[in-house]
Amino acid sequence: MAKDQKKQPRPKAETPKGFRDYFGADVTERKAMLDRIAEVYHRHGFDPLETSAVETVEALGKFLPDVDRPNAGVFAWQEEAVPGGGSGDWLALRYDLTAPLARVAAQFRNDLPTPYRRYAMGPVWRNEKPGPGRFRQFYQCDADTVGAASVAADAEICGMLGDALEAVGIARGDYLVRINNRKVLNGVLEAAEVRPDQAEDVLRQIDKFDKVGRDGVLALLTTGRRDDSGAQIDGVGLSEAQAAPVLAFLTSKGAGNAETLANLRAAIGSSAIGAEGVDELAEIAALLAAAGVAEDRAVIDPSVVRGLGYYTGPVFEAELTFEILDEKGRKRQFGSVAGGGRYDGLVERFTGQKVPATGVSIGVDRLLAALRAKGLAGAEAAGPVVVTVMDRDRMADYQTMAAELRAAGIRAEVYLGNPKNFGNQLKYADKRSAPVAVIQGGDEAARGVVQVKDLILGAKIAAEASVEEWKAQPAQTEVARADLVAEVRRILG
Amino acid sequence: MAKDQKKQPRPKAETPKGFRDYFGADVTERKAMLDRIAEVYHRHGFDPLETSAVETVEALGKFLPDVDRPNAGVFAWQEEAVPGGGSGDWLALRYDLTAPLARVAAQFRNDLPTPYRRYAMGPVWRNEKPGPGRFRQFYQCDADTVGAASVAADAEICGMLGDALEAVGIARGDYLVRINNRKVLNGVLEAAEVRPDQAEDVLRQIDKFDKVGRDGVLALLTTGRRDDSGAQIDGVGLSEAQAAPVLAFLTSKGAGNAETLANLRAAIGSSAIGAEGVDELAEIAALLAAAGVAEDRAVIDPSVVRGLGYYTGPVFEAELTFEILDEKGRKRQFGSVAGGGRYDGLVERFTGQKVPATGVSIGVDRLLAALRAKGLAGAEAAGPVVVTVMDRDRMADYQTMAAELRAAGIRAEVYLGNPKNFGNQLKYADKRSAPVAVIQGGDEAARGVVQVKDLILGAKIAAEASVEEWKAQPAQTEVARADLVAEVRRILG
Repeated sequence: MAKDQKKQPRPKAETPKGFRDYFGADVTERKAMLDRIAEVYHRHGFDPLETSAVETVEALGKFLPDVDRPNAGVFAWQEEAVPGGGSGDWLALRYDLTAPLARVAAQFRNDLPTPYRRYAMGPVWRNEKPGPGRFRQFYQCDADTVGAASVAADAEICGMLGDALEAVGIARGDYLVRINNRKVLNGVLEAAEVRPDQAEDVLRQIDKFDKVGRDGVLALLTTGRRDDSGAQIDGVGLSEAQAAPVLAFLTSKGAGNAETLANLRAAIGSSAIGAEGVDELAEIAALLAAAGVAEDRAVIDPSVVRGLGYYTGPVFEAELTFEILDEKGRKRQFGSVAGGGRYDGLVERFTGQKVPATGVSIGVDRLLAALRAKGLAGAEAAGPVVVTVMDRDRMADYQTMAAELRAAGIRAEVYLGNPKNFGNQLKYADKRSAPVAVIQGGDEAARGVVQVKDLILGAKIAAEASVEEWKAQPAQTEVARADLVAEVRRILG
Repeated sequence: MAKDQKKQPRPKAETPKGFRDYFGADVTERKAMLDRIAEVYHRHGFDPLETSAVETVEALGKFLPDVDRPNAGVFAWQEEAVPGGGSGDWLALRYDLTAPLARVAAQFRNDLPTPYRRYAMGPVWRNEKPGPGRFRQFYQCDADTVGAASVAADAEICGMLGDALEAVGIARGDYLVRINNRKVLNGVLEAAEVRPDQAEDVLRQIDKFDKVGRDGVLALLTTGRRDDSGAQIDGVGLSEAQAAPVLAFLTSKGAGNAETLANLRAAIGSSAIGAEGVDELAEIAALLAAAGVAEDRAVIDPSVVRGLGYYTGPVFEAELTFEILDEKGRKRQFGSVAGGGRYDGLVERFTGQKVPATGVSIGVDRLLAALRAKGLAGAEAAGPVVVTVMDRDRMADYQTMAAELRAAGIRAEVYLGNPKNFGNQLKYADKRSAPVAVIQGGDEAARGVVQVKDLILGAKIAAEASVEEWKAQPAQTEVARADLVAEVRRILG
């Protein structure tokens, strides 16, 4: 076998395109964030669910339901059909956490409580063209309530989302949960006398509201407009009178929920479904107020259009409202970090029965990026105390030192590389972001002392100090061996 | 599209064969265990690494290195070759956490510290025939040190493994880390004048030591034996004199490390590689003693044979020594929960350079089963306080109660199903393992009180009490609305 290997070219040490690894603080910071979110979800009565990463293509459905990515694919393969073994089924990696929830809700419908509140956190996979910052494996963090028809479930999730954002460190005032309702839009379409065959086109144009604004959408709904490149984009062909309720809907946000709801009632005219939608929003507003969630945390906002095409009732989105600098150094709002809403037909594919459900998904990478931008993540990156090896025959002594430090709760390790070159040991400590190095040669051992080097102070001195200051080595202290732990603790603060 | 779906049969709501979901406590108990292990690893200077679940088949290698499962397969598929998109590469799900570590160690060899200590926890996938308790996705939990030639790295991992077991709740005395060395075996094979072409056969028979014992191995090494079914199994053909050092090796465990090491020195005769192996074991024993790890926690034990064929130096295995009842009600030791050792060639496949490495893998499911058997996991299963809905118009009041309880750190939720049938609400609370139900009808609301029902006490009374006792309803208390949180807290203890 060794011979065979020599003939073959060496394999490339690379992840597949679009995949990546997470090292050290990348892992711990995300984990700390998700742990805090999980605690909030758990306190709200949500139970964790971890489904298998692999599903049958049949159970998963072949395509993503998200209208933003209609052609997105899955990683799928066919099992070998082996007697007593593989089934010949097509299997695939899950592309989100909702499709597996649908399968679980159907498979275990007789065992799960109704309603079933669950949260799920884990990787999902998309067979898409990778690009900068766009990976084919990424984390999702979802909470859903299955089997609750009441919009109390939607209100609960909106409030919980705010709690989760605060739990990870986003200050009140730095986020806003904005809530809309697909039924109100349906009412508006009725009031505007939009024909059923036009509805999808109208929805598509509304989806551009964030980008092209009121006048842009007006043009797109009526006679069309020219885009930035000068190309003519056809309009849907509504009259201005028809477009008016749609624009009224999109721009009906008032100074507070009461005013917004009044504007919406005007926009839907006499539509029954529209009135149902406005009533739902009013109930959500009342429930949030009762739960102490003020309008500066969660607010009715009909300009939320993302996902309106996918969801069937209330729709919500959490935005971070503080400003960051973009790649070009311009200030901009951080923007959306979570979205969700109410959807039907989750379980229907499997059982034929409609089961109401509502849920939210937090964009894990985006929220983590926000925490980093605000300086709220990164403290975990501190490296271990490194016990250096001056004398390789006394490895047991060095291990004892490290064991003592660890017993005191201090992260510590012995240098385990070739100890010959002491400079390499300090370079290693630097690479490890070690705050302290411990040094004991034979001379120090004989005198019962140990050198403790403050590497953070040392780096500061190296950068700023004069030669005289540097020579005085204030960052290195000799202490009695028995005082090692106390001295390290003093330096770590 | 709705029409198309009606024509198709409904998809089956099932995981693929050999896959499973984890609910509630299954998730939190495993997580709590892994969190404690991660803390120990972190304190020892190990950094987390989370590699992508998908690797190229080329980087992964097509087959498992574990000799126990030579035909085990991976889940693999070929990417479509699309210009600017898929590469046409064969991709696969990782089958363990060591192969991806090899790829990472090669890919990032200029960026990672040397030595590189890392831990990894996560699912792996095996395309094997599923069976009872045998799944095709399961968790692994590994710690490895890459780039440290010194057996101080092995000793560190053995000590850390003991710390990890204690951290999850296994008492000192209930586990034992047993350590052996492949080099000693190599020395024994030299002393026994085993021909190179016989070595693999000898190894295979040694691997049966746990099962067939000393005399069984003697027969297998020499003239063969009859197995339980009466079939004749050929022997390797060694003389009894040749077999003697091998048996001396396997049975050289003495009353303590000193005696064991003396027995091993005798078994290896004049073999240089054997002497190197014994010296390594002696050094590991000394390092463990210096770090305060006594022989009742980690001990040299040449009867550890599992993995000897795979590893190249020290080999270790952690056993839980307490007894449990097996499926047939017989007492037996719980047995192995972790194993590891030193291996070469980890990075060599990629770079051509030998990089020394050593590591350990904890069997996550087995260790969790052990914790459950000892009653050390399961406390997390407590459900939320359920606020019932007597009057659906006062949903806001009920949400306020739940919000107050949560603000006091108590897990609480409002019943969100159809509130019409109150019995269903109590059944729901039972299914949720709720410790407390909160009840407030219009009458109670008017009087400013709330009913708090102790469901655990209630269940006890229902099971044990007389009719009179039951009627007195000692498990249900009426308190002032303002005292809700205090009363719930009192019941929860």
